Amino acid sequence: MILIPEGDTRERQVCPDCGFINYENPKIVVGSVVTFEGRVLLCRRAIDPRRGYWTLPAGYLEVNESASDGAKREAREEAAAEIAIDGLLAVYSIPRISQVQLIYRAHLVRPDFAPGPESLEVALFGWNEIPWSELAFPSVRWALDHYRDAASTLDFTARDNPAGL
Amino acid sequence: MILIPEGDTRERQVCPDCGFINYENPKIVVGSVVTFEGRVLLCRRAIDPRRGYWTLPAGYLEVNESASDGAKREAREEAAAEIAIDGLLAVYSIPRISQVQLIYRAHLVRPDFAPGPESLEVALFGWNEIPWSELAFPSVRWALDHYRDAASTLDFTARDNPAGL
Repeated sequence: MILIPEGDTRERQVCPDCGFINYENPKIVVGSVVTFEGRVLLCRRAIDPRRGYWTLPAGYLEVNESASDGAKREAREEAAAEIAIDGLLAVYSIPRISQVQLIYRAHLVRPDFAPGPESLEVALFGWNEIPWSELAFPSVRWALDHYRDAASTLDFTARDNPAGL
Repeated sequence: MILIPEGDTRERQVCPDCGFINYENPKIVVGSVVTFEGRVLLCRRAIDPRRGYWTLPAGYLEVNESASDGAKREAREEAAAEIAIDGLLAVYSIPRISQVQLIYRAHLVRPDFAPGPESLEVALFGWNEIPWSELAFPSVRWALDHYRDAASTLDFTARDNPAGL
């Protein structure tokens, strides 16, 4: 049931049987724009939502994991890729779904990759080859645009959501 | 009880009565190094842990809130201060307690502030006046050091944990 626990100021989900209070918190997604010799690594999703569409290696940060370690783990799980983190590219907030995305700039340590269980295929794309109309989520587009902007201006300050989004 | 739910790969806390699965996720702390005319705003904590010690205005991001809005809300709640965000200063990971801290650079919109319910006092400090030995948490020290470094070098790329920490 939903109620305001004693000493709290907001409604929380509480189990009427055991009294467990479910403090809902925003979730952290960690991911990266991974490049190799000027091309970008993308994964085609094998799972819903947006099965068949292309995305960055990214996913939920786990407990007891640093943000950059999480981004490296996701590249390993989704693309069997070893990456090195170059810096933080962007922090995107998606308050509608209580999500904060930490997107890093990274590069492949070796040009080896393969689809993990959550990917149909993994590939490197030149900027003119990216399947722009088949990207899985708006934030994938944001990150690719921000990466290209950072690489061309050499301004590596962390980006926020695009204006108005 | 603790068990691995069907289709999952990790142990989760599950209520034996109602079947509720508590997916534990890392928590996001949002805060800011707030300045006004070269001085830094700090809050002396009125609550445990570290009651009586000085900290940045910072706290847990709420659901349906963007990260920068959360940082502004914390400044309002803890210091009755209106702030403007200038950029992201740092992302600190504290995996031992499953916490990711997003610390912004910000400035006071007006030189007005007052202790909120969680603060004993709020004050502006010059760099030589900061109570370095009475800071509440290591990450407060990290953020102040990183802020000073960014301001002096004009390198505003987001900082990570200090090396080895």
